[in-house]
Amino acid sequence: MALGRVAVVGLGNVGRYAVEALRQAPDLELAGVVRRAAAGAAPDLPGVKVVQDPAELGPVDVALLTVPSRQVPEHARHYLGLGIRTVDSYDIHGEIPALRRELDRLARDRGTVAVLAAGWDPGTDSVIRALFEVMTSRGITYTNFGPGMSMGHTAAVKAIPGVRKALSLTLPAGQGRHRRAVYVELEPGADFDRVESAIQTDPYFVHDETRVYRVENVDDLTDMGHGVVVERKGVSAGAHNQLLRFEMRIHNPALTAQVMVAAARAALRLDPGAYTLVEISPVDLLPGDRDRWIARLV
Amino acid sequence: MALGRVAVVGLGNVGRYAVEALRQAPDLELAGVVRRAAAGAAPDLPGVKVVQDPAELGPVDVALLTVPSRQVPEHARHYLGLGIRTVDSYDIHGEIPALRRELDRLARDRGTVAVLAAGWDPGTDSVIRALFEVMTSRGITYTNFGPGMSMGHTAAVKAIPGVRKALSLTLPAGQGRHRRAVYVELEPGADFDRVESAIQTDPYFVHDETRVYRVENVDDLTDMGHGVVVERKGVSAGAHNQLLRFEMRIHNPALTAQVMVAAARAALRLDPGAYTLVEISPVDLLPGDRDRWIARLV
Repeated sequence: MALGRVAVVGLGNVGRYAVEALRQAPDLELAGVVRRAAAGAAPDLPGVKVVQDPAELGPVDVALLTVPSRQVPEHARHYLGLGIRTVDSYDIHGEIPALRRELDRLARDRGTVAVLAAGWDPGTDSVIRALFEVMTSRGITYTNFGPGMSMGHTAAVKAIPGVRKALSLTLPAGQGRHRRAVYVELEPGADFDRVESAIQTDPYFVHDETRVYRVENVDDLTDMGHGVVVERKGVSAGAHNQLLRFEMRIHNPALTAQVMVAAARAALRLDPGAYTLVEISPVDLLPGDRDRWIARLV
Repeated sequence: MALGRVAVVGLGNVGRYAVEALRQAPDLELAGVVRRAAAGAAPDLPGVKVVQDPAELGPVDVALLTVPSRQVPEHARHYLGLGIRTVDSYDIHGEIPALRRELDRLARDRGTVAVLAAGWDPGTDSVIRALFEVMTSRGITYTNFGPGMSMGHTAAVKAIPGVRKALSLTLPAGQGRHRRAVYVELEPGADFDRVESAIQTDPYFVHDETRVYRVENVDDLTDMGHGVVVERKGVSAGAHNQLLRFEMRIHNPALTAQVMVAAARAALRLDPGAYTLVEISPVDLLPGDRDRWIARLV
């Protein structure tokens, strides 16, 4: 008996890995994939129902919104309005508090649950940063990304008219600062200067030093590996020089998908409302029996 | 207006740092210190009430049990029986599930809360291990301690008759294996061989290669620094070689005290029952307004 049936909304990189993560989850059932455009079978996903209207999937307990961040709010409103729990990995950091307030109200009205910003940053990195604050009440935390491919930034570039394919790399520049390198493959007749200007003025890029390169073939450059170093030096109970460091090197959309699937599990266990990962107890993200995890992890 | 008044029970290394952490906590009030033996003022803690009977401290919302692990169960039963929330850093890993069940029943009966095993291991390391399982559904996690001073092992050696002072070092031996080096300063007339044999057969030491050294002066060797590396290589959504690593170098009792104080805060916010740290949302461990933390961390 599965804990719940989960639909994947969108079928980009994260969506494809979410399908795989759901297939491997011992306690969740893949209801199918919802794609707004070009519904029909995905030839590389045999046995997976791909539909335009989620009603065709039968009962759905959770919608995993693997659409670009800017489309997350409208999708979340839609599914919560249907009384279906939502999980997203919305990554526009400054707008998360407002989105959380809105989804919290919607979810409570419909007696359902939204888990938002549930990727790795925001997401599991946010939990690490919270834990570092718990361990050291004073100090400074730096989050250093990369080098690696940013899915959010890449999707933002792909949405610019004239861009056929794109790759946005995040390069660490120390103490939480970053540079970005963007590689674009243009549609015939597109104007590189206009594309570059649209990138430089996009809110995703405006705070960082960004270089844009025109290339013939983006696919040849694409490696979905990424990484982060979160480091903090702080004070615990008056003792200085407490050194904390988290580092990972990971396949980016696969990790995002895995975390979203864990959040879907939590969404099936939580009281109505909207939650970010720092508001969820870690054991609620894990499959199966709580006592077994406590015996194993604690 | 403080969230609650907290008493520190015991005044060893962790107790002294807990007093300091409580003084620095913006939302908690130090009610005083309870010491079973030798009640009276602690000359190095001016202005702190040190008593034998907690009733002398006025209303107490949380008792921070900074006593040796083997004394934790009796103290927890006592305070929970009085309807006072408890926090401990009980570190006998294999016995945590049974203690949790017992304290859960007691806490629910009295409408109060116990947070147990709330140090750094078990404790914040347990949360890291849980998070690593969330991020990679398959893989192997290694926890490598040290080099550094183990408070639990040191306290266990100090409890052996004939030992005046002790220092137990944990030395990493790779892949989660450890060696231990124990330095003992004996009471006059004590038999070193009997002390060594008591150490070697103690459950704290029986699983590891342990060497025991007799020294003239343990204080000259004592550095309370410690550290850990938690590492995992695993699979997210079918993507292999996801590399996760957490490392810290810290003052051991100061970090334990800081985490216990954070757990006291959570104890004031949780529904009745017993909890380990993996069952608590990280934001409940942090002082003040939840929305402010979400805006800052997520």
